[in-house]
Amino acid sequence: MNVIYRIDDTICAPATSSGGAISIVRVSGPDCFRAVDKVVGMRRGDAAGAAGFSLHFGVVEGLDEVLVSIFRAPHSYTGEDMAEISCHASPYVVAELVRRLCDAGCRPAEAGEFTRRAFTAGKLDLSQAEAVADLIAADSMAAHKLAFSQLRGAYSHKLRQLRGQLTELAALLELELDFSEEDLEFANRDKLAGLSADALAECRRLSDSFRLGNAFKKGIPVAIVGAVNSGKSTLLNALLGEERAIVSDVPGTTRDTVEELLSINGVSYRLIDTAGIRETQESVERMGIERSFDKLDGASVVVIMLDGTAPQAEWEEIERVVGPRIGPEARVIRARNKTDLLDSPSPLPGVLDISALTGAGMDALKNAISADDAERLTESDGALVSNARHCKALENAASCLERFSDGLSKGLGTELLAEDLREALSELGDIFGEVTHFEITDVIFKRFCIGK
Amino acid sequence: MNVIYRIDDTICAPATSSGGAISIVRVSGPDCFRAVDKVVGMRRGDAAGAAGFSLHFGVVEGLDEVLVSIFRAPHSYTGEDMAEISCHASPYVVAELVRRLCDAGCRPAEAGEFTRRAFTAGKLDLSQAEAVADLIAADSMAAHKLAFSQLRGAYSHKLRQLRGQLTELAALLELELDFSEEDLEFANRDKLAGLSADALAECRRLSDSFRLGNAFKKGIPVAIVGAVNSGKSTLLNALLGEERAIVSDVPGTTRDTVEELLSINGVSYRLIDTAGIRETQESVERMGIERSFDKLDGASVVVIMLDGTAPQAEWEEIERVVGPRIGPEARVIRARNKTDLLDSPSPLPGVLDISALTGAGMDALKNAISADDAERLTESDGALVSNARHCKALENAASCLERFSDGLSKGLGTELLAEDLREALSELGDIFGEVTHFEITDVIFKRFCIGK
Repeated sequence: MNVIYRIDDTICAPATSSGGAISIVRVSGPDCFRAVDKVVGMRRGDAAGAAGFSLHFGVVEGLDEVLVSIFRAPHSYTGEDMAEISCHASPYVVAELVRRLCDAGCRPAEAGEFTRRAFTAGKLDLSQAEAVADLIAADSMAAHKLAFSQLRGAYSHKLRQLRGQLTELAALLELELDFSEEDLEFANRDKLAGLSADALAECRRLSDSFRLGNAFKKGIPVAIVGAVNSGKSTLLNALLGEERAIVSDVPGTTRDTVEELLSINGVSYRLIDTAGIRETQESVERMGIERSFDKLDGASVVVIMLDGTAPQAEWEEIERVVGPRIGPEARVIRARNKTDLLDSPSPLPGVLDISALTGAGMDALKNAISADDAERLTESDGALVSNARHCKALENAASCLERFSDGLSKGLGTELLAEDLREALSELGDIFGEVTHFEITDVIFKRFCIGK
Repeated sequence: MNVIYRIDDTICAPATSSGGAISIVRVSGPDCFRAVDKVVGMRRGDAAGAAGFSLHFGVVEGLDEVLVSIFRAPHSYTGEDMAEISCHASPYVVAELVRRLCDAGCRPAEAGEFTRRAFTAGKLDLSQAEAVADLIAADSMAAHKLAFSQLRGAYSHKLRQLRGQLTELAALLELELDFSEEDLEFANRDKLAGLSADALAECRRLSDSFRLGNAFKKGIPVAIVGAVNSGKSTLLNALLGEERAIVSDVPGTTRDTVEELLSINGVSYRLIDTAGIRETQESVERMGIERSFDKLDGASVVVIMLDGTAPQAEWEEIERVVGPRIGPEARVIRARNKTDLLDSPSPLPGVLDISALTGAGMDALKNAISADDAERLTESDGALVSNARHCKALENAASCLERFSDGLSKGLGTELLAEDLREALSELGDIFGEVTHFEITDVIFKRFCIGK
């Protein structure tokens, strides 16, 4: 744990954004109730004498009528004495309330400082604290499910258990080092091998889940490619126009982002537009177009739009340009557009017939894009790694455990074994913030908003 | 009271805007606790059995960990059974929580519907309900003070008292009508004359306070006029750059509005720019410039900028153009700018020396603009009418009371007296919503945000 972060003062900050009907100002720390009593005249009794999990009507002199929620250490979000003052959502009232609380001995909280205190008090581990930030940012069912599972320890539970067992064995290994001259084996080698193999498998399984977890969290990247006049932008509009991401109804969300997100069955898809391909012999132009397809690499789904009215040569050109760029794991969908202009087109094997203009075939296309993603999410129960920091730590831990298992089977000396195990445990501990340096936690909590 | 508005169903809505760390979803109505119990698994007991003003930790299955505040009728904002569910501020969580509550028997609340229910239940009168909206919108100390005073009944208290006494006498007058053939006088004429005179004086005092109250609420209009090169825009920047309105620090407030507001001692001033005046003989151009000064009429303060380096003729031209447009009650300030370019200028009587470029004289100019506004606000204790609807009702009531007093002194028949008094009481009642038609309250509550 870090030793630099001070928690002997009392912090306050608005926990809601401006707008709406109600705002909440949070107060946490040893002087919390004294400060609240200086600022709020509670109708019955005072904050200092109030029970935890109690709710009180009060008046802030000349400013507002408020509700005060009292939480007593350790039964609060931060683990400290805490109050939440619910006032009218006026920027003036909120600013003045914070000012008066600061006059009464609080200081304005930094971004993420409430959650940081929760972490410091052991109310949350670091991966759960990160999940809080992800939860607040979640804008789709899928992203939310991952964050909520992480908050509830879905995947950290088993990892913690394994780490705990390994830690015990590691302690025995360290003990052997103390008695190295006597050549004793306190740690059962078979048990060590079994446990480390389990831990390695779990680390690999989890780090492998990152690609999917990250896609669920940020939106699964779907590239749409096609010739210049194949109707690509009409298709984008048809897809986006019908299904807006859930956040679009909520004021204050950024349209820029939303308009590229398509939600199907609660999973977000990031629609990536690419340059229109033109059948051309000029190598210079061809190079430019091909460069614009570099982003195809990262796409989980590639929709190849074929213009139903265009000659076969154009289709071949598209396949030639796009084909080599598509990642091995990407789902490729071929759609023949403008079927409204064709007289009873004969179906082509493996090609969807659509009309972006009339909307024909859109449901089939969406089904093809989403495939079994929603089911995969349900099956995973949200226990997927979606945090790049965790993925890195898991990969590092896996390398160490691999070296350790390898050394174990080769009968390597205790000193080298202990070294690898120690490192693996440290990497795993990083995920929960158990051995994390102050600088790292600092970076994590700064990413929070004020009031959390 | 209206009879159309139904309150036998249960409503829910987010009461906070998106963003921040915490969001609150409000639930109110007869099925409130049943709905909450269907959606939230509270750790101890259920909402139906919980005491009023109690606070509970709970889990919304697969969605979030929440806090539930319980309020039991009539001790709640709406006067009904109410719950406030405090969840993580994720757009997805909030939308999903509202969806589940609706599945559990609630319906989404309309704008202002919680406050409307408070009004219907008699928790707030109509003027207080309007004060809630003003309180939330208040962006300066002055606007806040007026709204908060109105919420606490600062000026409605005396008016209600007078109206109550007049209502009793009006009832006696109506009684006389029932016995008109017997020529009885139940209502003491002297008492009637005294009371109606008091009420008339109070109505006039309050309607007269509207100009000031409205200016405090919306920002006192300050027109800045001057010649083309007198440094008007430099002055605007100098004034605005130093003192931003308090709302500018809060995300989500509209810059467009804020940037024209100058806050001095907690009072907002709306700086109004006008066309630069050019010394010109062309009547067409002159007409155009003069037209742009029409808005001078409404300005409470007019700052006339004189270019210290310009010839006397320009100054005279400005006075000629601007003079006739200034309202009789406006505070006029003359400021000689560009004093930094003058060698030791000799002071002119009644003219402030300033340099918008160097900032010299800015404090003196601000003092001149604000004059004793802050003191007037303090003296009024916020008991100023700032609502145009109230002002209109007060003016109408005053006319009726005037006719009534007049008729009384002339010994007019009971029937005519009763008619005038009835009308006056109805106008005053409108302010508190006591006789207001459904259509009027509907307009008022629609102006609220959802969740209030």
